Amino acid sequence: MSRAIAFWFEFASTYSYPAAARVRALVRDGTRFEYRPFLLAPIFKAQGWNDSPFNLYPVKGKYRWRDMERICEEVGLSFRRPTQFPRSGLTAARVVASSETEPWIPDFVFAVYRANFAEDRDISSSGVVSEILRDLGQDSGALIEKASMQSSKETLRARTDEAAALGVFGSPSFTVGQELFWGNERVETAMQWAKRS
Amino acid sequence: MSRAIAFWFEFASTYSYPAAARVRALVRDGTRFEYRPFLLAPIFKAQGWNDSPFNLYPVKGKYRWRDMERICEEVGLSFRRPTQFPRSGLTAARVVASSETEPWIPDFVFAVYRANFAEDRDISSSGVVSEILRDLGQDSGALIEKASMQSSKETLRARTDEAAALGVFGSPSFTVGQELFWGNERVETAMQWAKRS
Repeated sequence: MSRAIAFWFEFASTYSYPAAARVRALVRDGTRFEYRPFLLAPIFKAQGWNDSPFNLYPVKGKYRWRDMERICEEVGLSFRRPTQFPRSGLTAARVVASSETEPWIPDFVFAVYRANFAEDRDISSSGVVSEILRDLGQDSGALIEKASMQSSKETLRARTDEAAALGVFGSPSFTVGQELFWGNERVETAMQWAKRS
Repeated sequence: MSRAIAFWFEFASTYSYPAAARVRALVRDGTRFEYRPFLLAPIFKAQGWNDSPFNLYPVKGKYRWRDMERICEEVGLSFRRPTQFPRSGLTAARVVASSETEPWIPDFVFAVYRANFAEDRDISSSGVVSEILRDLGQDSGALIEKASMQSSKETLRARTDEAAALGVFGSPSFTVGQELFWGNERVETAMQWAKRS
């Protein structure tokens, strides 16, 4: 039996969009993933960055947008470069933090990424997050209210601290115990690790 | 018939060690790669970095050393973290620049990476580069002399300019025409691209 894999994600992150699609499909097939929302801003700040590295290093940024197009095309995901980048995923992350183990979480996480990176919707607005929840048949009013409670904020902050303690510095990341794997293309490696340990 | 894939590498780069092993094996199996040495220092400098990102961002650096261990273990390559990092690969890069299409180049490139990342030898010394050439049955004296000629320096500088023009910002990188793929784990993607285009 494999150990569970923690899936660490920040909603502003581009490469986490194809990762969220892949993890959702794996969850449906029975692989055990624990959804772990966190915020990259405090982690980036600790490294001296005050913006997305996509924006700070234009040469790398240009590559990564092109790379995203190719990756999405390869796996059949729609992709449109957002007119605003990065967008704050704070509200959506608090929704996840307050409902981490609910069965609709993989669908919600994927839908938020799709809204940002395929539909160019402003996921920083709680109106958009509400719409996404409603489309999934959830009680959006109750969930947004739950997400704005002090306990949800504290859970998200604790997850971010936990991510930093594990050495997470980017999204998506995967951990199996203390072993960290960074990047969309490392899901399989994390799964192999979960099987062997 | 597949198009040729340009393999861009800087000898100081860690992830290029497993890439050089993989590319050498693929060349033996008949895949067409063009070996393209370049220097990262001028490219890093243009992004405001004056050292390896491994050293500049310790959290990321720590991850990457661990990741290298795992990757090398997985593919059966020996690995030892060098006591000095990064080491200048200038002499070795000039040797490649002056003999790019020679049949011994894939072996030489791999041997230089192995010397640095498995044997902890100082590849910045032309003595070590000479030893590596001799071990491959090459005329090390003549090749080191050829490497130090003005024309070899100019070839390497031209390759570095070409890399920058293609948007290369790290090593290993792979290009097929104008399409750029960055990272050890993207060799397969580059090969797929070479087949389809």
